[in-house]
Amino acid sequence: MRDPTTMAEGRLELAGFAAILADEARGLSRRWFRTPVAIDTKPDDSPVTVADREVETALRRRIAERFPDHGIFGEEHGRDRTESEIVWVIDPIDGTRSFISGWPVYGTLLAVLERGVPAVGVIDMPVLGERWTGRAGAPTLYTDGGGQEQSCRTRDCRRLADATVYTTSPDAFDEAGLRVFETVSRQARTRRFGGDCYIYGLVASGHIDLVIEAGLQPYDYLAMQPVIEGAGGVITDWEGKPLTMESDGRVVAAATADLHAETIAAIARATA
Amino acid sequence: MRDPTTMAEGRLELAGFAAILADEARGLSRRWFRTPVAIDTKPDDSPVTVADREVETALRRRIAERFPDHGIFGEEHGRDRTESEIVWVIDPIDGTRSFISGWPVYGTLLAVLERGVPAVGVIDMPVLGERWTGRAGAPTLYTDGGGQEQSCRTRDCRRLADATVYTTSPDAFDEAGLRVFETVSRQARTRRFGGDCYIYGLVASGHIDLVIEAGLQPYDYLAMQPVIEGAGGVITDWEGKPLTMESDGRVVAAATADLHAETIAAIARATA
Repeated sequence: MRDPTTMAEGRLELAGFAAILADEARGLSRRWFRTPVAIDTKPDDSPVTVADREVETALRRRIAERFPDHGIFGEEHGRDRTESEIVWVIDPIDGTRSFISGWPVYGTLLAVLERGVPAVGVIDMPVLGERWTGRAGAPTLYTDGGGQEQSCRTRDCRRLADATVYTTSPDAFDEAGLRVFETVSRQARTRRFGGDCYIYGLVASGHIDLVIEAGLQPYDYLAMQPVIEGAGGVITDWEGKPLTMESDGRVVAAATADLHAETIAAIARATA
Repeated sequence: MRDPTTMAEGRLELAGFAAILADEARGLSRRWFRTPVAIDTKPDDSPVTVADREVETALRRRIAERFPDHGIFGEEHGRDRTESEIVWVIDPIDGTRSFISGWPVYGTLLAVLERGVPAVGVIDMPVLGERWTGRAGAPTLYTDGGGQEQSCRTRDCRRLADATVYTTSPDAFDEAGLRVFETVSRQARTRRFGGDCYIYGLVASGHIDLVIEAGLQPYDYLAMQPVIEGAGGVITDWEGKPLTMESDGRVVAAATADLHAETIAAIARATA
């Protein structure tokens, strides 16, 4: 076990390198945005393009050069050395359906796990130019489209009845999950659809209060944890358990602990 | 009846003035974006803010100064002289729920009606910096976030099975309408939620193929007609009838006449 100071310094270095990776990914994916790219369909019926594959390939190469003993788990090219103490988790284009629709709200997600626990998370929005960087034990940083960086905080919303809730698409839920989402989201003040990774950034920056999703993969949700927690929010699975590589892909991200607890309770009631 | 040349020149002037109005609206709404604004609830349960009201007030004042005999119909402040030959239709902030969520994909919509028929339409995205300008009898112009202007075209998608379809929210449909939307959108290649006015721009620029919506107001859909038609697309109500101030708020915007016809037929079958 390394001492805490060393770990914190290590995380700072990892966050700095994650920023370099996010910059590179941004430049690459923007080059393909709104150009005619061939769209393949993956076994899970989700679309993938040359942009997803090339961005991930570039990031994997960079990581392997700099940290040859780190593990890598990416959406498009799978697992390398994931038994390592430090593992990078990459979603080169989160929101591929958005990306291929010319929709500018798609992102690149990077997480760094320390023995399975997310220690660094980056949500980068290549076209909007915004970025959220979370680091365990530190305030989440938000960089606006003009490159100005500042720490960000969730909003002080404690009750579901006052909350603005977002989810990406009703199509991401299975039938039972959609019933639960319907029941719970109807108790919120406002609900809205669309967003992919961006809506977690909106929670971190205090613009919305709650995200309820399902059907996510580890590369979709692990980066969110340091971002949400470093901004004062709470993120878990639908049962209130911490997110890990083995979580079932059902996620609640809330602005406050009170709102999170009420949402988990409402999900439990709706599921019963 | 004025002669066609005079009418075309008149439209050019109107489009030019609409651009000035859109510039002013952009500056104003951005000032309130992501600031804490009080949110009131209108009789139809939709939210409204000082930003919606102040933007519309500013635009109405400008129009009244420049064209004192033109009519004005705005979302927030109602009707003035709408019996006039020329009527301006204003949605100061289309996507108020997005706006108050700090979501950058909200718009300002302007339409100019000549004896009830949309002759000029502007979709402006204040935060994204993009704009679509449609003018009857002329190609639709797209201005990107860097201020570069060019004409735009819809994509050559002729079959529902190949189409990417968007709608803003399932919550905008009544129960029967949602059943129709479900049936028809399931026949498309991809469906996505979210967007407000922006998704009509994505049709005009050839990034997506189809929008199916309901529950819209004249200030939500009239600006879309010149934009979609000038880009080669077709936009009508769900029965295939032209959009007017009196339409029922159910809208289909399609990239091609073939796709439009198939969609209208699919809606008719799903409704029967």
